[in-house]
Amino acid sequence: METNSAEGCSSGRLCYFVAASQILGLAAVIMTGVWLGHYEGGFAWDGSSHQFNVHPLCMVIGMVFLYGDAILVYRTFKNERKTTVKVLHASIHLIALVAIIVGLVAVFKFHEAQSIPNMYSLHSWCGLSTIILFCLQWVVGLVFFLFPGMSYSLRVSYHPYHMYFGLGLFILAIGTCLTGITEKLLFSISDIYSRFQPEGILANVLGLLLVCFGFVVGYILTRSEWKRPASSEEEALSLHFKTLTEGGSPDSPQSQ
Amino acid sequence: METNSAEGCSSGRLCYFVAASQILGLAAVIMTGVWLGHYEGGFAWDGSSHQFNVHPLCMVIGMVFLYGDAILVYRTFKNERKTTVKVLHASIHLIALVAIIVGLVAVFKFHEAQSIPNMYSLHSWCGLSTIILFCLQWVVGLVFFLFPGMSYSLRVSYHPYHMYFGLGLFILAIGTCLTGITEKLLFSISDIYSRFQPEGILANVLGLLLVCFGFVVGYILTRSEWKRPASSEEEALSLHFKTLTEGGSPDSPQSQ
Repeated sequence: METNSAEGCSSGRLCYFVAASQILGLAAVIMTGVWLGHYEGGFAWDGSSHQFNVHPLCMVIGMVFLYGDAILVYRTFKNERKTTVKVLHASIHLIALVAIIVGLVAVFKFHEAQSIPNMYSLHSWCGLSTIILFCLQWVVGLVFFLFPGMSYSLRVSYHPYHMYFGLGLFILAIGTCLTGITEKLLFSISDIYSRFQPEGILANVLGLLLVCFGFVVGYILTRSEWKRPASSEEEALSLHFKTLTEGGSPDSPQSQ
Repeated sequence: METNSAEGCSSGRLCYFVAASQILGLAAVIMTGVWLGHYEGGFAWDGSSHQFNVHPLCMVIGMVFLYGDAILVYRTFKNERKTTVKVLHASIHLIALVAIIVGLVAVFKFHEAQSIPNMYSLHSWCGLSTIILFCLQWVVGLVFFLFPGMSYSLRVSYHPYHMYFGLGLFILAIGTCLTGITEKLLFSISDIYSRFQPEGILANVLGLLLVCFGFVVGYILTRSEWKRPASSEEEALSLHFKTLTEGGSPDSPQSQ
């Protein structure tokens, strides 16, 4: 099972889709930077709107781009050792979490400095729900999949939920970004937004890019032929577990 | 395969999840009605903001609730005849399309009467993209799955894409609703939104309800044990097709 990472990209058109996801994700990050850096005055840590600008940039980097890439490692490095990929998955999520915390602090500090109330909008409700569930998912995932004491049967039982809620929260993060872009444009350029000015068009295109990134990541994850193959050890364990729990003839095992 | 529809609900906890989806979906429709009917002055067809109110109500009914239910018929009636369920699926989507068209006309007529520009916001970009792709998906689905001339192999090839884009557009519709709620609140109650007034809280809860509806519908659809079982005729056809195309020993057949 220890082959080079290029093999992970050898399943038909997987490479092209992974490349497309990276182009879309990086384009979204760059466009967020251009939007806030060029049209909204840039970045700072001084309680001004420039500090607010740190918030969307960190969220797009952490909650969308890095989150998406953390999910994709099981496809891009599907022939690497499982433990290595698990550590990579958890590590990218951890870096994402750092970006998310910086982004959160930026917006709360900005609100505090400008005496703007917190947590009243749909964007903030969706955002905080996503972040709390993301942290919960990260901790539970760590306990189930990286702590050696967890039994294989519990891992197998929890795995579908981890995958479903992982992808679900990623989508919710993108939905939250769309509400955030809408809010920011209506707060900053409400008088010119309807005149198809460059800033409005750029931010709208950013929203569509985030949606496309979500579509491509979701597509890669849900194609059965691109799933990680079960290792011989995993197959044996799964077979044993299935026989024990169902008492029937075991067939296709879970890959995690 | 012709059993009563109650059997479709016999797979473990499927019934409870379907019931939860209906409660969430109906609650979202009712809350949209209460929001616009009680707090935003009600409904009319006179070019005023009351005509605009028809737009969110129709979109939540058509693009979210009915769309979700149209997807779910393959789980709730999974033991009914395949053709019956297909017709039901297409018919609910058609009713949804009528609601969507009424909702679209309402907002364009309102904009026209009030001289408000069209199609400048991220909400409108996401919304129109979703509706165009929804129509395309409906027509292609009709041609592939209900016209008798289409070959089985083409149906099998297209089916995963139909499912993926169907669910993807449903999620995009919910994301578009979140941006729509955000826009409407910032246009209508921007001066009191941050003071946690009942209208703002109600609309925020509506947004979360739509997200929860999406999560439950997605969960029901992606659980492998709740998938529609392949009929003996479908199994035979699939087996034949698999043998022809792959030249190997056929295993588990597709259900559509």
